[in-house]
Amino acid sequence: MSGAEGARSLLLTHERGAGTAVLAVDLGGTAMKGAVVSDRGETLVELTRPTPASEVVGALISLFRDLGESASGLGCRVVGAGVATPGMIDEERGIVRYASNLDWRDVPLRDALRDALDVPVALGHDVRAAGVAERLIGAARGTGDFVLVPIGTGVAAALVTAGGTVTGATGAAGEFGHIPVVIDGEQCTCGQRGCLEVYVSGAGLARRYAAAGGPALSSREIVARLGSDAVADRVWTRAVDVLAQGLNILTLLLDPEVIVLGGGFSRAGDALMIPLTARMSAGLAWRERPRVVRSELGGDAGRTGAAILAFRAAGLEAVADEWRAVIPTP
Amino acid sequence: MSGAEGARSLLLTHERGAGTAVLAVDLGGTAMKGAVVSDRGETLVELTRPTPASEVVGALISLFRDLGESASGLGCRVVGAGVATPGMIDEERGIVRYASNLDWRDVPLRDALRDALDVPVALGHDVRAAGVAERLIGAARGTGDFVLVPIGTGVAAALVTAGGTVTGATGAAGEFGHIPVVIDGEQCTCGQRGCLEVYVSGAGLARRYAAAGGPALSSREIVARLGSDAVADRVWTRAVDVLAQGLNILTLLLDPEVIVLGGGFSRAGDALMIPLTARMSAGLAWRERPRVVRSELGGDAGRTGAAILAFRAAGLEAVADEWRAVIPTP
Repeated sequence: MSGAEGARSLLLTHERGAGTAVLAVDLGGTAMKGAVVSDRGETLVELTRPTPASEVVGALISLFRDLGESASGLGCRVVGAGVATPGMIDEERGIVRYASNLDWRDVPLRDALRDALDVPVALGHDVRAAGVAERLIGAARGTGDFVLVPIGTGVAAALVTAGGTVTGATGAAGEFGHIPVVIDGEQCTCGQRGCLEVYVSGAGLARRYAAAGGPALSSREIVARLGSDAVADRVWTRAVDVLAQGLNILTLLLDPEVIVLGGGFSRAGDALMIPLTARMSAGLAWRERPRVVRSELGGDAGRTGAAILAFRAAGLEAVADEWRAVIPTP
Repeated sequence: MSGAEGARSLLLTHERGAGTAVLAVDLGGTAMKGAVVSDRGETLVELTRPTPASEVVGALISLFRDLGESASGLGCRVVGAGVATPGMIDEERGIVRYASNLDWRDVPLRDALRDALDVPVALGHDVRAAGVAERLIGAARGTGDFVLVPIGTGVAAALVTAGGTVTGATGAAGEFGHIPVVIDGEQCTCGQRGCLEVYVSGAGLARRYAAAGGPALSSREIVARLGSDAVADRVWTRAVDVLAQGLNILTLLLDPEVIVLGGGFSRAGDALMIPLTARMSAGLAWRERPRVVRSELGGDAGRTGAAILAFRAAGLEAVADEWRAVIPTP
């Protein structure tokens, strides 16, 4: 949400008088994106800070407290808090099992936040939380069978089937970026070989472009050269082919109604979507290709999902396309 | 279950006096495998007939009626019927969307059987039904996160996450045999290229062995030549490599606790399991490999699953490892 829209929501809330709200943070490796979100889904306050190199839990609590003070200042009653984090997450027990970006292992983050904030707290996986948000108010509205694939520096996925997000036996499901697409393929930074994100991600694209003789460019700059740079065309075509293969794997295994693409890659627009959907269709002989669309929530999806999870932790379920009302959960 | 065991179960039932039972059929492209199954999970009667080239629904009804008469002859009260079929199945609506082996499109099989048999009827996908059975009394006892991968002439899968079997938006989920593992790879009979079962299935193994200069042998005969036939070794190694890649894809996407292998391929024993698990482990850098085990129910799994679904259609839920009791569903 832009600053102007945020201000408008704030005004509306004042006009209506104070309501309930939650505090939500999308905790990434570089930034902690926080917000106060009303029970009508409005972002009342946005507050983003860099993720520190150490003492992350303390910095996170401090951010939540500042968000809580802003909410109080607006006359809002804070009923819960939600945080979305990367890594292997045990959402049921509220534990971050492993997060390489944060150098965390078995951190009981939910209880730590609950003790500090004294409200119900939800801990969610960042991409799965983004999937929750895309389903409620984004590009996957109205379906319980979809996948969300954010493609940025790396590649992740939220896999939603029959309305539930797949978490797996240990909370490690959805590692779409690290499925092996080429046997004994190129080395991935994760230690495996032939992972999808070696070919498809922003980092992978830049590395493969440089390795093919191109200058050091960002993936955005490489995309800008398509059609006038044979090396750019070659690495991009390979990326599209591998992504089509990966999305067809998801299609044949999970039979989603829609595939939602997010992250910087999805902003390539037609240069991505036209060849990608053509390649996907060419690879499927006896079943329809699912719809492939771009994320509607973009970089706000994780934080919005954290807010929805926070309302759930408080016993409230956000409902409706426009998130105009909340009802108590049964 | 062997004939001798079937007779023993029959005797036990007579000693106890008649109970409730269901009629279950696993409908395949070549055979219709039927049984009368008691509420204690005992197979009281087995009756298998070839699947006719046409008029399959009529032959299926006839088989169910003969099973029903056998049940009545034993003094059993038949409370439901279940049928497991291949293809794309809409289990909720009871419709076979598409089954290539049976040349069926949009066949409302559940209603047809209910009208003919006058008991509640369940229609299930054959492999997903097998997964239900493996979970209740087979190799996946006690876990809600597993995959069942039967590898015979072709390759399929039942994907179970958080206790639910993934069916997808159109009932077409679980097509593990047709995920593309090699971009622009060898032609599959399904019309796609580079499908997993091109390399891994019994049919694929025999075809690739012959194409590599070997004589026309079955996959079982090819496995028997391992260690003394360089061509057999080569196509087998490729099959194991591709299967390990495919199972690692399932592992990274779904994070199962256990992978259950079924079908003729799984009977290769150590020749399969030792190199397969080694290749899987080598391909995973930062997470554990799930356990990989062989199916405990084998070729009976689909029919047993159909029986469990039939009890559910009758409002009864099979419980416990030994399926010794049934309780009413809430």
